[in-house]
Amino acid sequence: MNKQNRLPASNLKIIPLGGLEQIGLNMTAFEYEDSIIVVDCGLAFPEDDMLGIDMVIPDITYLKENADKVKGFIITHGHEDHIGALPYVLKEVNIPIYSTKLTIALIEHKLEEHGLLDSVRRKTVTHGQSINLGMFRIEFIKTNHSIVDASALAIYSPAGCVVHTGDFKVDYTPVFGDVIDLQRFGEIGKKGVLALMCDSTNAERPGFTNSERTVGKTFDNIFSEHTNTRIIIATFASNVDRVQQIINSACKYGRKVILEGRSMLNVIKTAAELGYITIPDNTLIEIDQIKNYPNEKMTIITTGSQGESMAALSRIAANLHRKISIEPGDTIIFSSNPIPGNEKAVTKVINELAIKGAEVIFQDAHVSGHACQEEIKLIYSLVRPKYAIPIHGEFKHRKAQKGLAIELGIPKENVFMMNSGDVLELNAETDFAKITGKVLTGTVFVDGLGVGDVGNVVLRDRQHLAEDGIVIVVMTIEKETSTLVAGPDIVSRGFVYVRESDELITEATEIVDEEVGIVLDRGITDWGKLKSTVRSALAEYLWKKTKRRPMIIPIIMEI
Amino acid sequence: MNKQNRLPASNLKIIPLGGLEQIGLNMTAFEYEDSIIVVDCGLAFPEDDMLGIDMVIPDITYLKENADKVKGFIITHGHEDHIGALPYVLKEVNIPIYSTKLTIALIEHKLEEHGLLDSVRRKTVTHGQSINLGMFRIEFIKTNHSIVDASALAIYSPAGCVVHTGDFKVDYTPVFGDVIDLQRFGEIGKKGVLALMCDSTNAERPGFTNSERTVGKTFDNIFSEHTNTRIIIATFASNVDRVQQIINSACKYGRKVILEGRSMLNVIKTAAELGYITIPDNTLIEIDQIKNYPNEKMTIITTGSQGESMAALSRIAANLHRKISIEPGDTIIFSSNPIPGNEKAVTKVINELAIKGAEVIFQDAHVSGHACQEEIKLIYSLVRPKYAIPIHGEFKHRKAQKGLAIELGIPKENVFMMNSGDVLELNAETDFAKITGKVLTGTVFVDGLGVGDVGNVVLRDRQHLAEDGIVIVVMTIEKETSTLVAGPDIVSRGFVYVRESDELITEATEIVDEEVGIVLDRGITDWGKLKSTVRSALAEYLWKKTKRRPMIIPIIMEI
Repeated sequence: MNKQNRLPASNLKIIPLGGLEQIGLNMTAFEYEDSIIVVDCGLAFPEDDMLGIDMVIPDITYLKENADKVKGFIITHGHEDHIGALPYVLKEVNIPIYSTKLTIALIEHKLEEHGLLDSVRRKTVTHGQSINLGMFRIEFIKTNHSIVDASALAIYSPAGCVVHTGDFKVDYTPVFGDVIDLQRFGEIGKKGVLALMCDSTNAERPGFTNSERTVGKTFDNIFSEHTNTRIIIATFASNVDRVQQIINSACKYGRKVILEGRSMLNVIKTAAELGYITIPDNTLIEIDQIKNYPNEKMTIITTGSQGESMAALSRIAANLHRKISIEPGDTIIFSSNPIPGNEKAVTKVINELAIKGAEVIFQDAHVSGHACQEEIKLIYSLVRPKYAIPIHGEFKHRKAQKGLAIELGIPKENVFMMNSGDVLELNAETDFAKITGKVLTGTVFVDGLGVGDVGNVVLRDRQHLAEDGIVIVVMTIEKETSTLVAGPDIVSRGFVYVRESDELITEATEIVDEEVGIVLDRGITDWGKLKSTVRSALAEYLWKKTKRRPMIIPIIMEI
Repeated sequence: MNKQNRLPASNLKIIPLGGLEQIGLNMTAFEYEDSIIVVDCGLAFPEDDMLGIDMVIPDITYLKENADKVKGFIITHGHEDHIGALPYVLKEVNIPIYSTKLTIALIEHKLEEHGLLDSVRRKTVTHGQSINLGMFRIEFIKTNHSIVDASALAIYSPAGCVVHTGDFKVDYTPVFGDVIDLQRFGEIGKKGVLALMCDSTNAERPGFTNSERTVGKTFDNIFSEHTNTRIIIATFASNVDRVQQIINSACKYGRKVILEGRSMLNVIKTAAELGYITIPDNTLIEIDQIKNYPNEKMTIITTGSQGESMAALSRIAANLHRKISIEPGDTIIFSSNPIPGNEKAVTKVINELAIKGAEVIFQDAHVSGHACQEEIKLIYSLVRPKYAIPIHGEFKHRKAQKGLAIELGIPKENVFMMNSGDVLELNAETDFAKITGKVLTGTVFVDGLGVGDVGNVVLRDRQHLAEDGIVIVVMTIEKETSTLVAGPDIVSRGFVYVRESDELITEATEIVDEEVGIVLDRGITDWGKLKSTVRSALAEYLWKKTKRRPMIIPIIMEI
């Protein structure tokens, strides 16, 4: 067929729907004509200024508007920043989920908690397998990461093939299962890849990320040097391979193991049922049996490695745990690095542990789950994409990957630094590659049962209340006569420590009383006007006296 | 004289009055009979849970109770965590201040702001000089630190000599002035030192801290590699030597220098007046002249290296600065490390700068001002104290210094890990060394003009308000007839986004109305009872509907 006579194929559209700006909200739509697939559905934890917010999820307006096109969620792995928003999103748009065995099991935990287990379809896929969804074929490729069963994706469409690495590292000696399927990356690359979407998290770090096995050696060393003390290890519940290695060391040195923390128990139980972790008989003991074993025969694996105030280790350190308390000589291992923002919380826990006489060990007890520069270069060299789209990581990380891509010979203009909602259109046949539009995206706050009912107005109010507290002025006015029949009374919370009798309150009350008198005497019956007069007189007085600006709420009751 | 017949000398008391637990509140009393001297008077910045608090200062009850004994404040150097609380404390107890020239000048800035310049006596001391205060003689010893004019102290009392290092490092090639007076440490040590109080901040770090001059080389390299772009450098205003080196590099490469940020202008102006920094003529330009010079001839030295939201660099990065905006290609150097807790704020600024096209450099553009392990060992070996009291730094840092002291041969029981308020009694003659008591210490919150009027109750309220907001219920009751004549009206802030007409508010109002009806019908006129009934009914309803617990304030007006 003459190429000129063929109709050009439609373009493939890639649309980051979560937030490339907000770390954690991983969610990307791939659209080809009437087919949409969505890769990952993560949540983010609130920033410091999002007071009272439990978590942040992506705005899915675009998916709701195109609900009839959406064929499925493709999930790369089971971390919260890739699966956490699923229950909230699935309540709005019911779409089937495709992923690997452990990932599906972890998602099912969430669906069960939200009562969605019966209503949401899901399908378990194995590495090497492909699924067809509308105009797409999606192939799952084995990778290594800090959770088992992680996948990269080859997403085939009539406009070309996109390789999406998910979160990954190259581990030549993984603890469980196979090394990342480098051969398949090479094979797909050889056939021609339109675009590579590659993990940027460690793109600023030179060299290679160490194998998970190196941590196992560290544990063996620590266990051999601490045969007379209890050993408590804090790590991420989802790092099943890490827990496996701790259990291996514990067994080798004749210790029992206690698992502590709700997510630790959940994940490890699931991983054991599915065969992703091997725990020898008579190794695990219940926490209630702790008194039956001497300290030097005990290992406790716990959550709380990020200093989270409600997690087991923090409660242990603060003497708030019901069953475990620190004893002088205890050896505590942090098998983790603090995630940015958690440094101070982690330090607080370390100091509390040290004050109680524990020895705290950080050194060499953690490796990253993300590819460093040499691994990123390896994937680029196997896949040899025409276009590069750095994903996962902060802007500075994605920018560092852009630098690597250019170093490897990809023209600068072929590297796309995308923002949330950008629509990137690509076509291998027509050689089209351009950001052509923008769809509505954003973040939604989850607070208690509420999804989206706390917005910026409420957050601004919380910020104001947190800074300077609130002063409430109430009064009752007889409507007919426009006379004040009760009040003004002033009540404050979170402002300064005052009693009703204190000068500050009596003077403030007098000032309000006077202002109200003037307004009413003028025959003004517009309570909005009265409120604003009261508010500004009081604000001025309090600022003069205290240099603070509490929220002031005048309330007028009419009888 | 027969030793047995001599009356034993009184003991020297060392009392940490600030917070050894709260980093920053450096303040230690030395007491011998009727004489008290106080070393340093620092402030701390608020922790994350101290909502709305501006700063934290030490509780000085002990100094007020012993005001007649207190002879003077001895200040080791001019950092906020050593001088910041002075204006607040001096308003309560007026005590003369002794320190070096630049330190006194920086203190005078503060006294002026607080209108204390005429009422507080201060005396400038030079290194090598001693002053006599009551039963004490205090010798100022030259050290190196990240601010010039830092001192260690030899504190002589009849019960023995204590060496206090202040914050220090060993810099063999300082930018300004002399190397730390190691000879004098040796000489004093040779004569016999009862106790050493040594900086622990870097006690976990092996090796030596690099000389400040190494940063100068880094600047030269960066300037030579970026001759075509504007260079913006963020650093601590108080690090005069750092600013000197930036100015040196700027001059070498033919650039003008703009100083930006209030504290940067203040400190460098003072340092220049006193001769601690040399700025060639025609180097500094005013910010208004920025348009008269091309980018490649410009260096901006700014505050904001910690990501502080109100500092110049953060405002520049967020496009909120009136005179400076980032242009693609700008080179930004962070000449600082993030202080623990500031990591996320710093990262936010870096990403904002990167998104605007700036190149951000961190590498090698900072050295610490604190001694690492080998320097600490050096000081111990020169001073050879009988007792060691690790100071400055978190518990884990002080514990690390304890380990070093023991390694160097100091018996474990001669190392004192002190807590705030502990009274350590020492006597070289009778060989007495014991913590014998505890005095009242604590922290005082400063918020606006208020010192100490925000306590834990107010902070707890702010926390509650910040988490879930407030719901106010007001009603007017006619006392004689016990009938509700107006309300209940419900007003909320920071809770969820609701309008008065929303179901949540109308239902809540109905529930309150009903409860009030029941209580009034029973003839109850105890408004405390009525309030608690309203509060619990409303709390239950809101929890059921929203899984949130806002603060609920019922207000009853009587007519």
